[in-house]
Amino acid sequence: MKRILTGDTPTGKLHLGHFVGTLENRVKLQSEYEVFIILADTHALTTLSETPEKIKEYTKEVLLDNLSVGLDPKKITFFKESEIAEIYELASIFSMYVSHNRALRNPTIKDEISSKGLGDQFSLGFINYPILQAADILCVKAELVPVGKDQEAHLEQTREIARTFNKISNSEIFPDPKALIGRVGKLPGTDGNPKMGKSLNNTIYLSDSTLEVEEKVMGMYTDPKRIHANDPGTVEGNPVFIYLDAFGSDSHRKQINKFKQQYEKGEVGDVEVKKYLTKILNEFLEPIRKRRLDFKDSELDLILKEGAQKTRIIAAETLSELKSLFS
Amino acid sequence: MKRILTGDTPTGKLHLGHFVGTLENRVKLQSEYEVFIILADTHALTTLSETPEKIKEYTKEVLLDNLSVGLDPKKITFFKESEIAEIYELASIFSMYVSHNRALRNPTIKDEISSKGLGDQFSLGFINYPILQAADILCVKAELVPVGKDQEAHLEQTREIARTFNKISNSEIFPDPKALIGRVGKLPGTDGNPKMGKSLNNTIYLSDSTLEVEEKVMGMYTDPKRIHANDPGTVEGNPVFIYLDAFGSDSHRKQINKFKQQYEKGEVGDVEVKKYLTKILNEFLEPIRKRRLDFKDSELDLILKEGAQKTRIIAAETLSELKSLFS
Repeated sequence: MKRILTGDTPTGKLHLGHFVGTLENRVKLQSEYEVFIILADTHALTTLSETPEKIKEYTKEVLLDNLSVGLDPKKITFFKESEIAEIYELASIFSMYVSHNRALRNPTIKDEISSKGLGDQFSLGFINYPILQAADILCVKAELVPVGKDQEAHLEQTREIARTFNKISNSEIFPDPKALIGRVGKLPGTDGNPKMGKSLNNTIYLSDSTLEVEEKVMGMYTDPKRIHANDPGTVEGNPVFIYLDAFGSDSHRKQINKFKQQYEKGEVGDVEVKKYLTKILNEFLEPIRKRRLDFKDSELDLILKEGAQKTRIIAAETLSELKSLFS
Repeated sequence: MKRILTGDTPTGKLHLGHFVGTLENRVKLQSEYEVFIILADTHALTTLSETPEKIKEYTKEVLLDNLSVGLDPKKITFFKESEIAEIYELASIFSMYVSHNRALRNPTIKDEISSKGLGDQFSLGFINYPILQAADILCVKAELVPVGKDQEAHLEQTREIARTFNKISNSEIFPDPKALIGRVGKLPGTDGNPKMGKSLNNTIYLSDSTLEVEEKVMGMYTDPKRIHANDPGTVEGNPVFIYLDAFGSDSHRKQINKFKQQYEKGEVGDVEVKKYLTKILNEFLEPIRKRRLDFKDSELDLILKEGAQKTRIIAAETLSELKSLFS
């Protein structure tokens, strides 16, 4: 069975954007592939270096988020990055073969520097993190990586590293891992911002209550040019309709299409459409909220412990192949 | 007993410059301190990334060099960097707390970039290596680090890292490691170049034969303005006299001073002084050459195996203290 490596950096709880970006692919593929899901807690230090203790809490929440969408811990190997020492050693060796220039040219790194306004104020770990991510992926020799669109640049760097070592060792140590991009490129925030994020306060979390969902949907950004319910409105790029398209099931499709036509003609108000979206989202989230309650803390600990044990054995084999080149 | 961490990057055999720079300090201090000597084989990839297999051979030679100068494997813990997985994990965590700017401002890194003419062509691992070195030192919580002068900048970075984590954890996880600079700042090459190096072909190795030493000394750069033996010559900055001062023992001091006076008056030829230096160096190297023969390959393997076991236990404790902050 081919391997998948994917995962999350525990810098906050997972939200609807994560679901369409990668979680639903994980659910679909969990029976066809051997799936490894990493909770990249060390990586989380790139943003939480001043409050490292928060990472512990988020790591637990993110594991729960993954389990609550229906990922089966009997099929999937979950592990914390901080428990696989081999990953750091791989990353350290990899970094000897990646030029500093190349690392700085990574388009996602450049985007992050500009969007976060980092200027030249970022850590060495920030520049290194795509290499750490390459080690996450390659330590289990994953062939498929379900990722968000912004992660494609890192995967390209991962492939370059894989090829470098295959060339040096004159053997096929690593596969050429492929990206699997989510169905919805990127879900906008509830405020219409193309980026969704905790710090932007524009997210609906998988763990939000029915009331929180209702409040957030009712406050959603729609079409700013529309003042009255009978003004013609714009559907294209309107977050409410993007969410309806993303989370409506087949049984909702007819009503959604009707709303779209009515909205463009000024025949339906924002409130009515938002109420429908609230209903759809709460229907969607209800089984997720329920499953969340199924897991006790001790079970989470055991899942991570067993996952780390299994992953370390594989990572140690990979590392020893690589180290035989020089040690 | 306080701990020392020092070591070598196995990119070539050790030479006379290493002896005065750090090896003689190691010999002196091996009974007063608990000494750890690292063979930084992963670090060696920063220069030998294209021919990693050479590192294995150099690692063995460098261990032999250390043992041959009189370091006692019963007192000292020798280990290979590649066998201490915890070092990489520490370095990865450290790198989250070192700014990219700060890493690029490291004066030794800047010097190396300029002296090796790297321009902007260097690896990410090259920028990371002072952080890896900080992890080498701090994994055993060393308090004293016998280093060459060019390593002082790295030790300053190590101290900054130690202080950062003591501050964040609000405890004394790490000591503030001090540098111990060698007696002779820097031994020039046999060609008068202030830097000695394998690639410059201007070194006398600890493992050189009597004949090799004779040939290298007879070809040494002296005073270029002196054509005939009866021309007055310059002693100051003359490599032959620098070597005489560095390796002559008390019993040679009188003759060395006499040569200096004669040389400045044009009363002694280069050849005569060089013959005396050859004699002194071969006397100095003879016991080193003999001790080198005492060690079998299987003994070297055992020394490194036991050293790695001991170091890993200590490094794992250090790492777990640090990781408890976020994992």
